[in-house]
Order: sequence, then C-alpha cells, then structure tokens
Amino acid sequence: MAMPPPACSRHLLPLSLGLFQGALLLFFAVFVTYDEPSVRVEDANLVANQLYGIFPLFQDIQVMLVVGLGLLLTFLPRYGLSALAHNFLLLNFSAQWALVLQGLLHRFHHGQVHLDLHSLLLAEFAAVTVLISVGAILGRTSPCQLLVVAACEVPVYLASEWVIVTHLGVLDVGGTITIHVFSCYFGLGVSKALFRAAKHPVHPKEIPTPRSDLLSLVGTLILWVFWPSFMAVLCQPGATQHRAILNTLLAMSASAVTSVVASSLLEKDGKLSPGHLQNGSLAGGVAIGAVANMTVPPVATLALGSISAMACVLGFRFLTPLLARKLALRDQCGIHNLHGLPGILGAVASAVAILVTPEDTSGSHFSQVSPIEHNASAVAGGQWGDRGAGGQALCQAAGLAVAISGSLLAGLLAGTMLRLPCLAQLPEQLCFDDSLNFKLQDHAGSLGQGGTAEEGALALKEQV
Amino acid sequence: MAMPPPACSRHLLPLSLGLFQGALLLFFAVFVTYDEPSVRVEDANLVANQLYGIFPLFQDIQVMLVVGLGLLLTFLPRYGLSALAHNFLLLNFSAQWALVLQGLLHRFHHGQVHLDLHSLLLAEFAAVTVLISVGAILGRTSPCQLLVVAACEVPVYLASEWVIVTHLGVLDVGGTITIHVFSCYFGLGVSKALFRAAKHPVHPKEIPTPRSDLLSLVGTLILWVFWPSFMAVLCQPGATQHRAILNTLLAMSASAVTSVVASSLLEKDGKLSPGHLQNGSLAGGVAIGAVANMTVPPVATLALGSISAMACVLGFRFLTPLLARKLALRDQCGIHNLHGLPGILGAVASAVAILVTPEDTSGSHFSQVSPIEHNASAVAGGQWGDRGAGGQALCQAAGLAVAISGSLLAGLLAGTMLRLPCLAQLPEQLCFDDSLNFKLQDHAGSLGQGGTAEEGALALKEQV
Amino acid sequence: MAMPPPACSRHLLPLSLGLFQGALLLFFAVFVTYDEPSVRVEDANLVANQLYGIFPLFQDIQVMLVVGLGLLLTFLPRYGLSALAHNFLLLNFSAQWALVLQGLLHRFHHGQVHLDLHSLLLAEFAAVTVLISVGAILGRTSPCQLLVVAACEVPVYLASEWVIVTHLGVLDVGGTITIHVFSCYFGLGVSKALFRAAKHPVHPKEIPTPRSDLLSLVGTLILWVFWPSFMAVLCQPGATQHRAILNTLLAMSASAVTSVVASSLLEKDGKLSPGHLQNGSLAGGVAIGAVANMTVPPVATLALGSISAMACVLGFRFLTPLLARKLALRDQCGIHNLHGLPGILGAVASAVAILVTPEDTSGSHFSQVSPIEHNASAVAGGQWGDRGAGGQALCQAAGLAVAISGSLLAGLLAGTMLRLPCLAQLPEQLCFDDSLNFKLQDHAGSLGQGGTAEEGALALKEQV
Repeated sequence: MAMPPPACSRHLLPLSLGLFQGALLLFFAVFVTYDEPSVRVEDANLVANQLYGIFPLFQDIQVMLVVGLGLLLTFLPRYGLSALAHNFLLLNFSAQWALVLQGLLHRFHHGQVHLDLHSLLLAEFAAVTVLISVGAILGRTSPCQLLVVAACEVPVYLASEWVIVTHLGVLDVGGTITIHVFSCYFGLGVSKALFRAAKHPVHPKEIPTPRSDLLSLVGTLILWVFWPSFMAVLCQPGATQHRAILNTLLAMSASAVTSVVASSLLEKDGKLSPGHLQNGSLAGGVAIGAVANMTVPPVATLALGSISAMACVLGFRFLTPLLARKLALRDQCGIHNLHGLPGILGAVASAVAILVTPEDTSGSHFSQVSPIEHNASAVAGGQWGDRGAGGQALCQAAGLAVAISGSLLAGLLAGTMLRLPCLAQLPEQLCFDDSLNFKLQDHAGSLGQGGTAEEGALALKEQV
Repeated sequence: MAMPPPACSRHLLPLSLGLFQGALLLFFAVFVTYDEPSVRVEDANLVANQLYGIFPLFQDIQVMLVVGLGLLLTFLPRYGLSALAHNFLLLNFSAQWALVLQGLLHRFHHGQVHLDLHSLLLAEFAAVTVLISVGAILGRTSPCQLLVVAACEVPVYLASEWVIVTHLGVLDVGGTITIHVFSCYFGLGVSKALFRAAKHPVHPKEIPTPRSDLLSLVGTLILWVFWPSFMAVLCQPGATQHRAILNTLLAMSASAVTSVVASSLLEKDGKLSPGHLQNGSLAGGVAIGAVANMTVPPVATLALGSISAMACVLGFRFLTPLLARKLALRDQCGIHNLHGLPGILGAVASAVAILVTPEDTSGSHFSQVSPIEHNASAVAGGQWGDRGAGGQALCQAAGLAVAISGSLLAGLLAGTMLRLPCLAQLPEQLCFDDSLNFKLQDHAGSLGQGGTAEEGALALKEQV
Repeated sequence: MAMPPPACSRHLLPLSLGLFQGALLLFFAVFVTYDEPSVRVEDANLVANQLYGIFPLFQDIQVMLVVGLGLLLTFLPRYGLSALAHNFLLLNFSAQWALVLQGLLHRFHHGQVHLDLHSLLLAEFAAVTVLISVGAILGRTSPCQLLVVAACEVPVYLASEWVIVTHLGVLDVGGTITIHVFSCYFGLGVSKALFRAAKHPVHPKEIPTPRSDLLSLVGTLILWVFWPSFMAVLCQPGATQHRAILNTLLAMSASAVTSVVASSLLEKDGKLSPGHLQNGSLAGGVAIGAVANMTVPPVATLALGSISAMACVLGFRFLTPLLARKLALRDQCGIHNLHGLPGILGAVASAVAILVTPEDTSGSHFSQVSPIEHNASAVAGGQWGDRGAGGQALCQAAGLAVAISGSLLAGLLAGTMLRLPCLAQLPEQLCFDDSLNFKLQDHAGSLGQGGTAEEGALALKEQV
C-alpha cells in the first residue's frame, strides 16, 4: 500500500482554515458593516425592486457554481464526493478571502467596509476563477494545496481585473477575458510548476464510467441553463440585459448542436464522446461574455457559439494530447479547451465586433457596469471616447495579452509554492480516490456481518 | 455480437446536423435581427420590468426541459447518457428549426425577422412536442431517426397550433390540447409506423434499477416543482396569472397523493410502482393546462388532478399492456398515460368549465395571450363573443379532435419515413445501451491493469 | 426470510389516504374559494408585482423541500427511492392537511375560506416540520406510520406556532424556534416512544456508500443555495429583506468552512466525515432564522454560523452516540444536531441580539410579518413596545421553552400511537430497504435470461 501523507500535514487543513476563519471574524468585527438602511419610506420600493432585479440572478449563479460546476467535476468515478466538496469549500473560502481583499482595496472609505449583495456577487466572481483553475489539477492535489492556490489566485485576479477593466477599459461584461482566460492560464501555470516534467500513465481511476459521466452531464446542463443569468447580472437593466440574454441563448444553443456534430465527425464510428458534449456545450457561453451586451447581429452570436464549440472539441481531441506529450502539461478537466480557447475566440470576437460596428454616438449600446467600480464606466464622448474603434479594439487585444501572460506567470509561481515540503505531494496510488479525503465506512465488510454470504452477494447484485 | 449500423449511416448524423447549422446561419444572416432597442429613457424601466416578468419563468421552463425531463428519461439503467443527451440535442435542434419556421410563417414583415425572448419561448414550446413524442420510441432509435421526427413534427405542430388556437379559438393557455395531446398521438403514430406489428419480448436492459428509478424520480420532482411556471408564462400578469399558479399547485398536489393511492391499490401487497409515481404525479399538470386561467372553483382543480392521476396509473396498469397486445403498439415511456389520457381529460374539463361557468360580461377572466399571435386574442363582446358558452365548448371538442386526428396521421407518415433505408434500424441487441451512441472507455479492463486481481475486485466492490 | 407486514395493513395506506383525499374534496367543495379577483385595472399591476415578489421565492422553497431535502435523505444506500418518495408524499399530505386546519382555525370568516399563494406558503411551512421530524425515524417506519406522524404534528405545530408567535410575540422570521426546534424535539419524542429501549446493532444497510453520500451532498448543496429565499419570503420587502438575505449568506458561508474545520480536527487522520459536511453546512441557516431580519453586525452572523456548525459536528461526534447509549434514543438523520442544537443557539442569539441592540424608536428594523396573522405584527410604541428589550428577550426564552417542552410531549404521545396494533412494526430485516415499499422488478434475473452467463457478468461489471 502507498504511504499516507506525513503526520505533520494531517491537520494542516483544519488549522489553517480555522486560523483564516478567526482572522475573518476579526476583520469583520473591526471593519465591516452593512449599508446603512434607508429610513425613508419612498426608498423601500426602490430597494425592493433593486433586490428583485439582482437576487434571482444571484441565486441562479449560486446554483451554477455550487451544484452545476460541482456536478460537472464528478466525472472521475471515485472522486465525486471530493470534487463536489472541494468545489464547495473553495467557493466559500475564496469568496470570503475576496471579500476581505476587496474591502481592503476598494471600499476602505471612512474606516468602514459596507457590505451589500453586489459586493458578495463580486466576491463570488473572484471565487469562480479559483474553481476553474483547480480543474487542471483535479484529483492529484490535497485540499491544503487547493487552499494555497485559492489564497494566491484571488489577489492576482483582483489586480489583473483592475488593470484590464479599470485601467485599460476593456469591455468584458461576462468575464470572458478577466475570468475565463485568466483562470485557465493560471491553472495551467500551477499544473506545470507542480507536476513539472513528470509523465503519468493513465490512472485506472481517471477513466469515467457511464454513471459518473451522467452526473457530470447533469452538471453541464445546469450550467447551460443558468448561463444567461451569469451574463445578465452585471448588464444594465433594460434593453442591454435583454440583448445579453438573447445573445447568450443563441450562442449556447449553437454550441450544443455543434459539439455533437464535431464530436461525431472526429470518431470513425460516429459515436459521441461524453467529455466533448459536457464541455463543448458550454464553450459558446465562455466566448460570448466579451460581446454579450454589444449590438452584434444574431448570426454573429450563432457563429461564435459554433466556432467555440468546434475549437473546444478539437482541443480535447488534438491539443490536450499534444500538450501532454510535448510539454508534459497536465490538464485534468480540459480547462484549456473549455475556458482558454473559447475565451481567446471571444476576445478576438469582441475586437472584431468593435471594429465592424458602425459608429454610434449615443454611447448607450456598449455601456456596461464595471465589475469593480460598481458605477457605469461609460466612456465619455461617443462610443469609444477619444480612443476610437481601432483604439478600443487594440485595448481588447492588450487586455487579452495581460490576462494570459500575467496569469501564466502568477500560476507558475503559485504552483512552485505547492511543492513546499510542508504540503505533501500525493503519491500516485492515492490519487483520484475519495477515501483519501473522506472517512468512508467499510460497507462491504459490514454487509457481510449482517447475513450469510449469499445475502451479501445478493446485496451486491441488488445495489448495482 | 450484433451487427453495427451500416457504414453509410455512421456520419449521417453529424453531416445532416452540420448542414442544418449552416443553413441556420445563412437564414439568420439574411433575415434575423433583434428587436430595435428603444432609445427613450423612460422605456428602460418598462423593458426591465417586462424582462423581470418573463425571464425567471423562462429559466424555470429551461430547467424543466433540459434537466427535469432529461432526468425523467433516465429510467433505462444503461441508457441514461443517451436519454439525457438526445433530449438536450433535440431541444436545441427543434427550437432552432421552430425559430426558422416561425420566422418564415408569422414574422415575415419587411423582410426582417425580429427576435426577442418571447419568440425563443414559443420556439421552446414547439420543441417540447418533439421531446414528448420521442418518449414513445426511446431507446430503440438512432439519433438520426430522432432528428427526422423533429424535422417532421415541428412544422406539423405549428400548423396544428394555428388551426386550433388561432382559427378555432380554442382556449388552452397551458398547452393541454395543443402540446400534450398533439405530441402524444404524434409519438404513438411514429411508433406504430416504425415498429409495425413487431412484437418484442421484454429486453433485459429495459427494466429500471432502483438507482435509475431514483434519478428518474428526481426528474419528476424537478418537473413537478416548476410546472406552475410553465402554466403562468403565457398568462396575463396579475390576477389571472395568480389563479393559474394556484390551480396548477392544487392539481399537482392532488395528483401526487392520488398516484400513491392508485398505485398501492393496484398491487396485492400494497407496494408502489416507481413508474406510477414518476408519471402520475405530473398528470394533474398536463390536465390543468386547458383550464388553469379560468375561474373554476378550487375543488374542481383538485378533482381534475386526482382523476388525471388515476387515469394515468390505470393506463399504465391496464391500457398500455392492452395496446401492446392488441395493436402491437409500443410506448416506451408511457406517453399515452402521462400526456394522452390526462390531456383528453383536461380538454373535456375545459368544455365542462365553459358550460357551467355563469356568463360574465366583463370578458376579463378568460382572456389569454395566444401562444402564436403574441397579442391577446380577447374574444370581443361578452366572454365567448358571438358563439356563446355552448359554441365555445364545441370549439374545445373540435380542437381536441383536430389535435388527435391530425397528429396521429402526421405521426404515422413520419414513422414511415423512419423506415427509409438510409436510416438504419437498430438491431434488437443494441437497443437501450449507451455504448451505441457514446464512446465509452473500457473501464473494467484498465482497472485491471492498475493493480492485482484483488485490487480490481476491491475496486469493484468499493464502487458499488 | 422475515415476515412481511400482516395482510390487514397492506392497504391501510391507500385506503386512509384515499379517504383523506375524499374529505379534502368535500371540504374544498363546501368552504374554499379563491380570493376575489380584483376588477379594477390599476390593481392589476399591484397584483402582478406582489406575485413577482413572492412567487420566485415560493418556487425556491419548493425546490428546497422537494428536491433538496429529498436528496439529502438518500444517504441510505438502498432506501433512496423510499426516502425521496415519502418526503414528497408527506409534503403534499401535510400541506393539504395544514390547509384544512388553517382554513378551519384562522380563516373561517363568512363561511368561506379564501385561498391564495400566501396561504399555500404557510401550509408548506407546516409541512416542513413533518419532513424534519420523520428524519429521526427514517428507514424504520412504514408509510402509514409516517402519515400518522404527519396527522398528529400539523395541528400541534399550528397550536404551538400560535402560542409562540401570536401570543408570546416571539420574533422568529425564519422559523428557528417555531419550525426547527419544534420539529426536532417532536421527532425525537416520536422516536423515543416508538422504539423505547430497543437497542439495535448497526444495520448493514444503514451505512452510506460514497455514491449515496454524493447524492445526499447534492441535496445539501441545493438546500444551501436556496436557504436565503426561505429566510426572505416572510420578511418585509426592501431593506429588511436585503439584510435577511445577507445575514443568511454570511452565516451559511461560515458554516460551510467551519464544518470542514471541525470535522477534520475530530479525526486522527484529518479526513472529513461526509455526514458532518452534509449537515454542518446547513447549521448556520437553521440558527440565523431568529435573527436574520434584525440589525445585528455582520460579524455576529458569521460567528453564529461558525458556532452552529461546530455544535452540529460535535453533536454528531459525541452527543448522538451518547444519547443512543444512555437513553437508547435513535436519531437516524441526526436531526438533533442539525435542527435542535443550532436552533437553540439561534434562539439564544436572538435574545442576546435584542438585549445588546441599542434601543431604536423607529420600530422599523425588527418589524416582521407574522407567519400566521398575515398582517405585520408591528409592536406598537418603540421597538419592543411596553415590554422593553429585557421583556422581549425573556419572551424569546419562553418561546424556546414552549417549543421544546410542547413538542417533546406531543411527540411522545404521537410515537405511542405508532405502536397501535393496526400499524405493523417493521421487522429489523426489512428496514432500510426500498423493496419493502416499492415493486422492484427482478433485474438480475431478467438480465440472465437475455444472454449467456458471461454477458450477465459483463453487464454487472459495466453497470458498476
């Protein structure tokens, strides 16, 4: 049998997490209050209406992250509990950590941090990047290592997001560049630095079963259904939000059909690969984020959805094996295919859309609420302000470059930290198995106690 | 081993689907734009409020169709992936196809088709009919054959819906007649024409396991919870919508309890049949559609829910075996019991409700938004206009007759097309198995590679 | 083999349920109507807006109870279908029964009971208590016995709720005391009276598998995501509702992280116990109910969430085994740890919050809508009216005492009724098995018919 992780690290997780919870309590005790409740009666309706506008979308996004993404990760047949639980833990830890950092960085007015649903939403967005990134190292890392990734990634994300959106003025209402591209290359950096040149043969527990693929597909479908809420939540209410929802629906519908086409064409016997469907169906949603609120024609959204799904499926079929062979790069969930390639396509599409859209002096169509600044970062004077369409398109490209290079570098650094001696590396035999993380009771043994051998066999059969 | 489908048909699916996607792009490029964004500021709130009114219900319906209905179909223990994936693919394909046809038929003004969330919703409604119909042939058909069904059914549905709602003026806000009855008999027609007199013995993979029944029941519960949104989405906002929601909740609550009663009474030892619960609980929702927005007393809704559930359970117990024996009619999911019988009951209930409701000259209670016309088809002059209550009740009966006869005929024709030589018939041995449609990796084998025989056995045991 | 239940009780379930449905129809026919539809046009928007305020929250709560709670109970590996179906049946039966009782007790004006979405919501709340209580006896009871529990508990809940909220004026917008504490001790009373001093060894089918734990965790996550809706639905729209949502989100986030910490620390090797995570993550939601709408600082909510999760995990580890050993008290789902301990903590927290909050004469912050009275029970004159903060804190304590003692006593009585001869006790061998309640087809046998022995073995393997 393989060696368990050394004793010193056994309680590293609860101790560090507990310490963090204590620090969080302290921070909240000293700094955080809720927004002042408005005392005027006429505001009550306004507050209620604002809440009705954001709360259902917030809940949809919570379902996506907690249930949808969690289930999507359960494709490893014996690692489902861990995948679901780690996703849940990381979401909470990262969001809390982001709340602290956002509070310190952006909201430090008068010594008090005011908390509202909007700030919780932005903290969730920061947490999403962590959930995506760790997909690259799913099943081969301890929860402690995952926490270190989260601790590193959240501040880097906030910095990168500030540079890209606030400083460069990149238009990216759905987080295509700031969230998806960023977290993809951060995760790949971590994976590369953590596993280096080690080439692992296929682990038997890595291979999905029809049952685990089924649950994972359910996760995909939940993400697919609620994706428009993710796009709409930061759009301006009204026509822009309506357009973002329509664009997302069209792109994702095209993705769903195209991934079936692409996956079938790649196999000699025309069969579908479950992984292609699980990921390709969502590719359109990743790509559309940067253009969702722009006035692009419907055909462009359809085409973007189709092309993204194609890129995703081709990536799984050719690029991932190539990167594994040439660069010894491990990407367990294929985040490069779902978040990297479609994200880049989306960024390019946004630049193209800006270039080809006829100039509109009203400035209303591209307005968006900056994910950080909370107030609309309307570019003054025409649609693109002084920079013009060409300048804005260049900005989009610059934002993409910043997202890729910054995250890759930071990810490599973070991955190197994961090799610290205090963070035990998982031995190969213990990977992809819930029993490493969970106290599972010996079921087969106790079934045997309860009856004769025949009964046990029957029980085993019935359970199937 | 059984013969695989002939080579010619292996890539028929991706090629035809890909061709369709190309045609869709072309159609969108030439014809489709979004609704003009309103430039006036005072409209922004209006647009936002309209969106808040329809978007949450739209999302609920998406959850029903993609997750709920998909899971309901996973009761075949080795066909879960295929059921879920085909449901998802058919939903997207049929909705796209319906968008094209609706655009061509109804919205061809000034050479442009204007797209909004409402038109996407109507396209989803058209797709629902396909998802229901293919339940009759689940597990015995290739994806190509399913696409042919979808391609045939959507235009027939649009025509039938036009005749029933627009031409005859049938009241059916929840699609009891236009969606449920129509798709049930279309599906039965397809099944009859496809399988003809072939009598198949029970296939071992046809029998649900407790595990597959569990997932299927989860699907039922999701459908059950969100059904009121399906009823409410086309109702007039305000009191009518409130009433439709209450009626649906009462009918479905009665259905849930009554299917337990009926199922238990039918068995000697008082046990429940999982299939009865999975379907019977939803029967009230099917039946209530035609009367949901009418001013019926609550007791009538409860009674309708109870009777529908009873009919559904009795149908499973007696009618389905009888039809299989006498007519060699195959109905894999029992769509006749869930959609046919309760649909007919609902249509009859709507006629009775119209006859016994005291005349109301305000005309406000029965007003509904026609699913196609988009504007309220308020019958001028009193509640039923010139035709009176008796005339309107006759119309309901006529609508039911049109739905049944038209769909049965069209379904028989469509089923005959499925026998075309280019669409290979599935051999009996390959039915009900995901491995026909999905590339599943050989898990048992690779588990064996990873360790000794004992480890493999242990692994197998642990997985249980 | 064990003896099946005696013949006399085989049809007790459908007969009694059927009788109840008949009585329900009669009651509805004689007494129940919908609220009068408003005829004035200006009311339509008001009705629509009220509906948009409550309906999405109502749907969220339905998802929690039907899907979330149902899945949470599927941790028994061979009892998943029964757990899900009984939860569904009990919800419907109890809500119908509560509708009847509420109608008789509170709404009997002018001989007519007016039904609206709000009254259905309150009926669901009454049903929740039953769903929680039966967790203590999950798997060892027949459906008939569960119905008897429901029939007893709903009227006791309504009485207890009237005493606590209306008579004592306890503040408990999220049902911490009235729902969670009440149902916990009711369930424990039932369990004690039903099983008395019988000590059962661990049943082999009692032990969760990774797979059943996974589905159960999905249930937890669904409950976790939608819990804020449960808290918000009875709050006043506007700032109070916003605060309740934020408080709930913070408390549950702290719970999630803290249960991981606590569970890991309790095990020598730092592994997580799935049950701790499944329950501890929700403990904060239970506790926050009594203070969710109060103006407590965010740090207090975080702390309450953390402490509740700790109490829950410690309860599972130490208290439940202790109670089983000393009092022979059986608590299958650990409802004392999830609902009892956090509920008591929440009640204490509400008293503390009332004592330490600076007096606010505006009276606006603590206002809540009484779950029964339907109109705001604003305490006149300052925040706590004549009784002052000390008096109100005492009230909270008195409410807690009433909830515990009343429910324990009533539960003991109800549990004694479950021992009536007509309600057959389940023999030990038949416990925790779906085959007692469901007609499951012999899958292994028919698989054997379909092919050779090798094929059967292969099939078995593939299914894993």
